[in-house]
Amino acid sequence: MNFDIIRCGRAVLHVTDLDRSRAFYEALGFIETESDEENLFLRGLEEHNHHSLWLKKRSEPVTEVISYKVRTDADLDELESFYKKQGQDVKWMEVGSQKALGRSLRVMDVASMPVEYYAEMETVERLLQRYDLYKGAKVQRIDHFNCMVSNVEQAHNYYIDELGFACSEYTAGEEEKIWAAWLHRKPSVHDVAFMNGPGPRLHHVGFWLKDPMSLIDGCDVLASMGYGPNIERGPGRHGLSNAFFLYLRDPDGHRIELYNGDYLTSDPDFKPIRWDLNDPMRQTFWGHEAPDSWFEEASEVLDVHSGKKQSLEEPLLKKRKPNFVI
Amino acid sequence: MNFDIIRCGRAVLHVTDLDRSRAFYEALGFIETESDEENLFLRGLEEHNHHSLWLKKRSEPVTEVISYKVRTDADLDELESFYKKQGQDVKWMEVGSQKALGRSLRVMDVASMPVEYYAEMETVERLLQRYDLYKGAKVQRIDHFNCMVSNVEQAHNYYIDELGFACSEYTAGEEEKIWAAWLHRKPSVHDVAFMNGPGPRLHHVGFWLKDPMSLIDGCDVLASMGYGPNIERGPGRHGLSNAFFLYLRDPDGHRIELYNGDYLTSDPDFKPIRWDLNDPMRQTFWGHEAPDSWFEEASEVLDVHSGKKQSLEEPLLKKRKPNFVI
Amino acid sequence: MNFDIIRCGRAVLHVTDLDRSRAFYEALGFIETESDEENLFLRGLEEHNHHSLWLKKRSEPVTEVISYKVRTDADLDELESFYKKQGQDVKWMEVGSQKALGRSLRVMDVASMPVEYYAEMETVERLLQRYDLYKGAKVQRIDHFNCMVSNVEQAHNYYIDELGFACSEYTAGEEEKIWAAWLHRKPSVHDVAFMNGPGPRLHHVGFWLKDPMSLIDGCDVLASMGYGPNIERGPGRHGLSNAFFLYLRDPDGHRIELYNGDYLTSDPDFKPIRWDLNDPMRQTFWGHEAPDSWFEEASEVLDVHSGKKQSLEEPLLKKRKPNFVI
Amino acid sequence: MNFDIIRCGRAVLHVTDLDRSRAFYEALGFIETESDEENLFLRGLEEHNHHSLWLKKRSEPVTEVISYKVRTDADLDELESFYKKQGQDVKWMEVGSQKALGRSLRVMDVASMPVEYYAEMETVERLLQRYDLYKGAKVQRIDHFNCMVSNVEQAHNYYIDELGFACSEYTAGEEEKIWAAWLHRKPSVHDVAFMNGPGPRLHHVGFWLKDPMSLIDGCDVLASMGYGPNIERGPGRHGLSNAFFLYLRDPDGHRIELYNGDYLTSDPDFKPIRWDLNDPMRQTFWGHEAPDSWFEEASEVLDVHSGKKQSLEEPLLKKRKPNFVI
Repeated sequence: MNFDIIRCGRAVLHVTDLDRSRAFYEALGFIETESDEENLFLRGLEEHNHHSLWLKKRSEPVTEVISYKVRTDADLDELESFYKKQGQDVKWMEVGSQKALGRSLRVMDVASMPVEYYAEMETVERLLQRYDLYKGAKVQRIDHFNCMVSNVEQAHNYYIDELGFACSEYTAGEEEKIWAAWLHRKPSVHDVAFMNGPGPRLHHVGFWLKDPMSLIDGCDVLASMGYGPNIERGPGRHGLSNAFFLYLRDPDGHRIELYNGDYLTSDPDFKPIRWDLNDPMRQTFWGHEAPDSWFEEASEVLDVHSGKKQSLEEPLLKKRKPNFVI
Repeated sequence: MNFDIIRCGRAVLHVTDLDRSRAFYEALGFIETESDEENLFLRGLEEHNHHSLWLKKRSEPVTEVISYKVRTDADLDELESFYKKQGQDVKWMEVGSQKALGRSLRVMDVASMPVEYYAEMETVERLLQRYDLYKGAKVQRIDHFNCMVSNVEQAHNYYIDELGFACSEYTAGEEEKIWAAWLHRKPSVHDVAFMNGPGPRLHHVGFWLKDPMSLIDGCDVLASMGYGPNIERGPGRHGLSNAFFLYLRDPDGHRIELYNGDYLTSDPDFKPIRWDLNDPMRQTFWGHEAPDSWFEEASEVLDVHSGKKQSLEEPLLKKRKPNFVI
Repeated sequence: MNFDIIRCGRAVLHVTDLDRSRAFYEALGFIETESDEENLFLRGLEEHNHHSLWLKKRSEPVTEVISYKVRTDADLDELESFYKKQGQDVKWMEVGSQKALGRSLRVMDVASMPVEYYAEMETVERLLQRYDLYKGAKVQRIDHFNCMVSNVEQAHNYYIDELGFACSEYTAGEEEKIWAAWLHRKPSVHDVAFMNGPGPRLHHVGFWLKDPMSLIDGCDVLASMGYGPNIERGPGRHGLSNAFFLYLRDPDGHRIELYNGDYLTSDPDFKPIRWDLNDPMRQTFWGHEAPDSWFEEASEVLDVHSGKKQSLEEPLLKKRKPNFVI
Repeated sequence: MNFDIIRCGRAVLHVTDLDRSRAFYEALGFIETESDEENLFLRGLEEHNHHSLWLKKRSEPVTEVISYKVRTDADLDELESFYKKQGQDVKWMEVGSQKALGRSLRVMDVASMPVEYYAEMETVERLLQRYDLYKGAKVQRIDHFNCMVSNVEQAHNYYIDELGFACSEYTAGEEEKIWAAWLHRKPSVHDVAFMNGPGPRLHHVGFWLKDPMSLIDGCDVLASMGYGPNIERGPGRHGLSNAFFLYLRDPDGHRIELYNGDYLTSDPDFKPIRWDLNDPMRQTFWGHEAPDSWFEEASEVLDVHSGKKQSLEEPLLKKRKPNFVI
């Protein structure tokens, strides 16, 4: 490869009521970098970039795009060449067309997810040591995207072979087909995960917390403000990834994961860890079942070219959930 | 009253396999004070008394008795007089008949629970600062009993008016009848709670942890040792009592609560806090539902006189569970 | 005894700048119940009483009085009789003379500390489950007073024999004389401690935190707001009491302890734990030295009758500090 | 550069009594991979490689070498070419000459520190989810080396320009000369730091913990086992790096840092953070002073060619400590 994808960078989500969203995300501990009547830019406490979550006011909640940061501006040209060689259309977003961002390249990825690459985002004050501003779950930074797609194995192979990702862990389903895969560029468990289901859809955006107590604090603060019903699943420990997790639904139903407990995946000789789909400790190390909504609901996504919602395809593997929760 | 009940003191449970029980409770972080082929005496890390949990090997799991510590030996005579005046039989357990215990008085309480009073228990080394022995959830001390009984309001009134307990919090069910009550002698939320259901049964014994992270650590350690299926409910926050909780089923099905997050109830002018049965934040502040087993299953209890299992009575209030989990 | 002291209740401290004090105590996580130009009433998150800390604006920082809550109003009359029999003057503070308080009785105690008893304080909203208001170290409630006095053994004996306190732990100094003692009414390690030094002075007021992470959070928040220089000692673990502690100096130099890690002292057969003054694990379980200021500085106290500052007496025991920090 | 250094990998330290060392490091929570009469190989709970700390029994405590993992075996040849071009000798350690390691290349670095590169180390069971084996501070993995050297600026420039490291934070001393620098290959704050002082010496090896409570637990466990005197500094928060830290001296005086609280440094546009040497929040965010020993003592190092101890050079910058601790 002639390009270098650094990490997952930001998500652009459509929401229907910015004030309602702002109240929720501020309760969670996000920092508002700036906003206007149509846009709300949020970041975590350790982020030195302008935002990792861009909420746009629109009539319908949907995922516009998920964005990766690349090393240099030249990497964008390399990515354009790469995608064109593959016979895929690309869409350039010029400087100035998006707040705080340099030019970017948008494409539909192999799993029909709307994906964007950018090299430059405006730098703002990092608030890591402004502990007086810590609130809620004290969200630190974006960690990963999780996508529900119809052909996980195809996405897995493409991201590894063509885009230079590495696999940290995966779930084997029917006939050893890959049912879910965790892939990374930065040396954490993942920048993006793919799981089997009707897709393309964005299952959740994961944000990293500094420690497990921040997650417990987050639950207490959210509940005390009336957001108890927004807690969908957890707290618990994933067997896969070892993460201490909490899943939330924002006021428009977009799913956010609070996440702590990762490990370092820097080594080229690290062997991907295989989990069986029906291993009861895979989903939840402590043995808890996930609610059906977690397996069934996800945010639909736009086509970067048409601007319209992508239609869903049935998943290649029939099992949509592990046995033990069916 | 002429007697002074200090606090809940110990539970005596019958189990069917001592080795299996030992493995479970040691994983949880209990300290074994001593044992033989028929008995296992366990205590928490800060306890200076011989045991707070006595497991007896028998053919069937059942609760033999729950025991309260009183201030002086003379209080036992006063309690005998009190119960006799009420027309109730008492049963003396003489010194030497129970390991490490002075003489004790056993009675069937107003709710037909087998209850025992004792003033003296042998002192052993307190291990509070032996952090090198801390394991699992690092269980510190016994905190409370929770009893499922058919007439909660009667038990509530009796324990307050006749035995000198105070109510910290309660749940109002149909027509403002008391559906559950938390009663204390030591100034914590409770030494004993009563909840509406087919009874008399022991719902659980609660043990106090030093902090929330010990509970998370406990989950991880238990799961890594194969005890994931023993985690019945939690971790979560009770609205009622504010406790950060975890419910476990021991290998015989006895329920143990790990508990942290109480508050001080020392003040005579503290007003009992009322919760509506169907308030979704009562059971779980974060809004999680409890599994049906938590509402339906509990340990049956022996009659202190006949030594036989008590038969169950249907509860006075029809609702056995809050609406939102039905 | 014919009276029942429930617990330490509140401290009344003089400060020189209410705004400066407010900023500091709010950063720590206290809740302001009310204030005017001369008074600031603060409480912890779980307190249902009007205040546990009353700051009065005066020209000089000093401790006006430390107050204990008794069971009933009649206990105050019993205390008056008791003190009069001992030949001591008492001072009644009538209802209305102190904000939110019933009538109270003030006396100079055996160690010449200004002490007050009250039965009634106005009830306000308890904010235990208003996690959205939690800040800084999330101070929960008042826990204890620590007094530096010239004759610790005398105070120890008097509080136990005459006032009904129990000793949880003590430090033996020269010739087995008591160098410091921890005494309680509520079943925690202490409501009041006495330590050897030029006195009478108030060494610190201790406030209880819900867990160790709240103390770490408190350090981070205070430091981020410029209060780093107010952190005098810790965080650390006391060998004596097992407390995880932090000592702070407020803007007027009054010392506040943040405190977590206590144990239950309910049992009449609990034997006081003896520590040698020079045991390096007594002061700090992890072996850290305390700064000299911690041994030498404390808040001077007023005479409840004259309203003037008490003069200091040299301590009976010569050693003012453990050897290992000299 | 034609080589790719992945991360700091292991340290090889000489100790005088393996049993004494084993007891200490096991108390800390390290896992022993294997050992014989002369060697002890230790790793953290998440490490899938054979060891990150190799203790060799020798007559005198000293640092033999600090080792970095590179991407491929071919990178070792590239590094040989690089160092030879610079006119430096290299020393090959052939396969089989070191337990569990492929061939490695040893050199004296620009600061005269003994440095080693390797691509392959034997894989062993990763114990991340064996929570039943967690002990003490539950050490997870090696994080960084800290070296005291006479010319920090030279080392800083060389590691960045020639070896491809990036600087996350640095301390400016006299005339804006670099007094200390934190440099990384993996996207954490550092794989290696250099600080001004008589050198070359190894100041400490840093190990990463999963959360702040593990550090507190570590203090308690170490103290309860008699290792209180081995706690040299902390717990505290570094302003620089934001780490929650604890410094320990092992039985031979080698310094170990327990470390949590890092942030992600993946972005090429991340600007190194500058701290003034005398900023009181640099060393310790909460304002604590470090003991003199921390600034003065460090492990001497061997010459990889002669096998003899390197002599010390005086540091280029005169100030060996910040003003506020002098």
